[in-house]
Amino acid sequence: MTCEGYLKLCERSREVYLIRSVAAVLTWDLETYIPSKAVEYRADQLSYLEAKAHTLFTDTAVGDWLAASEQYGFNPDSEEYANIREWRRAYDRATKIPVSLVEEFEKTRTLARDAWIRARNESNFREFEPHLEKIVQLTRKKADLWGYEESIYDALIEDYEPGIRAGQIKPVLEDLRIALVNLLGEIREESVAENFLDGDYPRAGQMALSEQIAEALGYDFAAGRIDSTAHPFATSLGPCDHRITTRYNEKRFEVSLYSIMHETGHALYEQGLRADRAGLPQGEAVSLGIHESQSRLWENHVGRTPQFWNRWHATACKYLPDLKRFSAIEVARGVQRVAPSYIRVEADEVTYDLHILLRFELELALVEGHIRVRDLPDAWNARFKELFGLTVPNDSLGVLQDIHWSHGLIGYFPTYTLGNLNAAQLMFAAEQQIPGLQDQLAEGHYQSLLLWLRKNIHQHGRRYLPAELVCHATGETTHAKYRIEYLRKKYSL
Amino acid sequence: MTCEGYLKLCERSREVYLIRSVAAVLTWDLETYIPSKAVEYRADQLSYLEAKAHTLFTDTAVGDWLAASEQYGFNPDSEEYANIREWRRAYDRATKIPVSLVEEFEKTRTLARDAWIRARNESNFREFEPHLEKIVQLTRKKADLWGYEESIYDALIEDYEPGIRAGQIKPVLEDLRIALVNLLGEIREESVAENFLDGDYPRAGQMALSEQIAEALGYDFAAGRIDSTAHPFATSLGPCDHRITTRYNEKRFEVSLYSIMHETGHALYEQGLRADRAGLPQGEAVSLGIHESQSRLWENHVGRTPQFWNRWHATACKYLPDLKRFSAIEVARGVQRVAPSYIRVEADEVTYDLHILLRFELELALVEGHIRVRDLPDAWNARFKELFGLTVPNDSLGVLQDIHWSHGLIGYFPTYTLGNLNAAQLMFAAEQQIPGLQDQLAEGHYQSLLLWLRKNIHQHGRRYLPAELVCHATGETTHAKYRIEYLRKKYSL
Repeated sequence: MTCEGYLKLCERSREVYLIRSVAAVLTWDLETYIPSKAVEYRADQLSYLEAKAHTLFTDTAVGDWLAASEQYGFNPDSEEYANIREWRRAYDRATKIPVSLVEEFEKTRTLARDAWIRARNESNFREFEPHLEKIVQLTRKKADLWGYEESIYDALIEDYEPGIRAGQIKPVLEDLRIALVNLLGEIREESVAENFLDGDYPRAGQMALSEQIAEALGYDFAAGRIDSTAHPFATSLGPCDHRITTRYNEKRFEVSLYSIMHETGHALYEQGLRADRAGLPQGEAVSLGIHESQSRLWENHVGRTPQFWNRWHATACKYLPDLKRFSAIEVARGVQRVAPSYIRVEADEVTYDLHILLRFELELALVEGHIRVRDLPDAWNARFKELFGLTVPNDSLGVLQDIHWSHGLIGYFPTYTLGNLNAAQLMFAAEQQIPGLQDQLAEGHYQSLLLWLRKNIHQHGRRYLPAELVCHATGETTHAKYRIEYLRKKYSL
Repeated sequence: MTCEGYLKLCERSREVYLIRSVAAVLTWDLETYIPSKAVEYRADQLSYLEAKAHTLFTDTAVGDWLAASEQYGFNPDSEEYANIREWRRAYDRATKIPVSLVEEFEKTRTLARDAWIRARNESNFREFEPHLEKIVQLTRKKADLWGYEESIYDALIEDYEPGIRAGQIKPVLEDLRIALVNLLGEIREESVAENFLDGDYPRAGQMALSEQIAEALGYDFAAGRIDSTAHPFATSLGPCDHRITTRYNEKRFEVSLYSIMHETGHALYEQGLRADRAGLPQGEAVSLGIHESQSRLWENHVGRTPQFWNRWHATACKYLPDLKRFSAIEVARGVQRVAPSYIRVEADEVTYDLHILLRFELELALVEGHIRVRDLPDAWNARFKELFGLTVPNDSLGVLQDIHWSHGLIGYFPTYTLGNLNAAQLMFAAEQQIPGLQDQLAEGHYQSLLLWLRKNIHQHGRRYLPAELVCHATGETTHAKYRIEYLRKKYSL
């Protein structure tokens, strides 16, 4: 005997997924190939699709099917139970916000994004300030409607990292901060060097090299492709269509290579989800923190290492002859250089999480009402000085650098650091469980690692909460010590 | 006082247009960049969208709004009246076919297409025969449901060329046949030459040349782009997004150049439709025969001429140095060569319409029941011998060469010839009405011609029936004499 409501939910969930996958095709095209005059109507197409998907999923019938499914008594260990749990979370969150608030928020962030672009160009926070105030106000309103127990921040991060709480993130980031600041102090002056690898690296050679490496990592080009965009990203356009993008800098080959390794990490996760569960929570990535662990693992733990360059140096020199100026070890040293800098997206592995810590502290204080939006630039600059020892010269290089807040994404930043922590923790566990893993990686054999990730992370989709998933794979929930140990081993001299 | 039903129809029509424009993005991606494993799910996405659009448009409410609008008493000369006429035609046709027949037809042609590919590869008509029999049977069933007065063929061609009848096409094609066969006889032996222009034409140079020419013709790259596909096409992804594709043959530059000029002609039509009427009949191309007139006009009347090569020869030599072997006049002679051949899509201007005549006669006889599917290859080969003087060596070069019938497209072929006829007739009228047009074209100034087409064809959308539109622009309905005169002047020696 089957549960009718559950079957209906599966069907509706697959329909919503299909509509969103259609929107993903349109968004991919918007970022890659769309002609300029077509952008305006593309926005109409996308908002039509999103409204359809939203309406279908927040239908009262969905509430009835959910209630029936919850009463049916599925085994708590079953896939069905997990699917229902995930639908319930999504349904309650979506239906708790009145349509008027959704519309007001959309309008606000559209205007905010425009204002942010102007403000950043002019390095003038005051231009952005009223918009950010509105965003914070509406965000708090949404969080109140969603509800929370300890911190209002908990209601926000739930969108990106289900089940985690600000109170859990705080001590982890504090441990990390202490370790990173110490480590930075230890790293000798000369590692803060210029980009000595800069040279002449034709785009065609960069493309060929990156594609060969992505394929070696296990990326399936028959279910994906690489294009070029202003900002690299990975996206899924269907159960067998996981595309990535990169950007090319002909002076600096690392830009495309490591963005492709990063996005390949995301795409390998998506390609490892169960295609036969596409459209159901079981076939969906579980959280941003887990997603980012996959990208960081392949980019940094696999890619930014001497072993990697021992394996790929000769190949890279074939495609990019200007690299012959350097030995494999020199290239590795170049791509591993550490240098405190103002911009998060250009940060090295050691300082990266300090950028996140700064943002987490500030957005937490903002939504909890401990600082005012108007005081944000001063707070940013003061804390930046403490963490990095640098004086922020202007707001473009400071509080205005990221797009997230203008997009209404508050509670998102910590997932970057969770990704870093999970990457280190997963890599540690993989090394324990796969005999000779480092030897395999040194030889350019990545299958064992990929299979381990498929088995322990990818195939589960949203079956478990992110913290449970990490616990199953590594024996404990996310902890900073693995990352600290990894960075210390890699960078301390 | 406004007509409520009419406003509702406008809204619904725009919604259906939006969904179909979304499908057009997905189809464009399917033809250009999709990874192979993603094709299967893409079919699901597309059939979902088509079903949604179909359901929305065949809603009984649409019938009510139509009835109310028809009774409202709009002026027969008004835009509203024409929109209602077009919706009525589309609504009646869509609702006359039961969903079960639509589904059976879709399934049949999906299987037929597969069988056709196999049959063509093996040059084995028997493999395709049962599928084509089914298609003809279902097509006749649909035509009977749609209804017709004289020929069953009339019900079919209505999809592609509203208002025209087989009885009107027949005498026109017969006039054309006599003239073409005479002309072919007159053309001297040596013009039936090898492709003497063949050489070494790198793809990058072909792209640069074609883009410069497309831009000179008036193609707006801010509302379009050119990509590469196996079969060139033009498509609209929204009111300001009209893309074209081409294919490159590095031995034969004409393949990309003339396919781009052809598709640019289609795209110029779409770019000339009123964007403020997007989603309404008034903002839509009127018929395939008119569409094809635009592509043929730019490709052949503008592009395959000595004047064109006088203007572009130096530029072409810059991008394609191997062209320096030839003078402008020699290039023009090369791209104008006439040679009876087996394959329609490779045919020259003089023999092209004989290929269409053959298909028209056969498909007319098929649906009218005068020949059987099993006798088609013999009938094809016999008539081909009469028309071209050539013996068809196998069915791949004969009855199996075109995809149309396997797709269920019966009644479509004559629109190619209507396009040719309209192109010549429009060009004749334009020359009468634009002082010094040929001088302008010789200098590479195409704006006057484009503006004339915008004013007389593009901006009207579906305001008039195709025959009326041609009549308004040229003073009479489509007639073969302009094309005959044009070909005689261009090719008779």
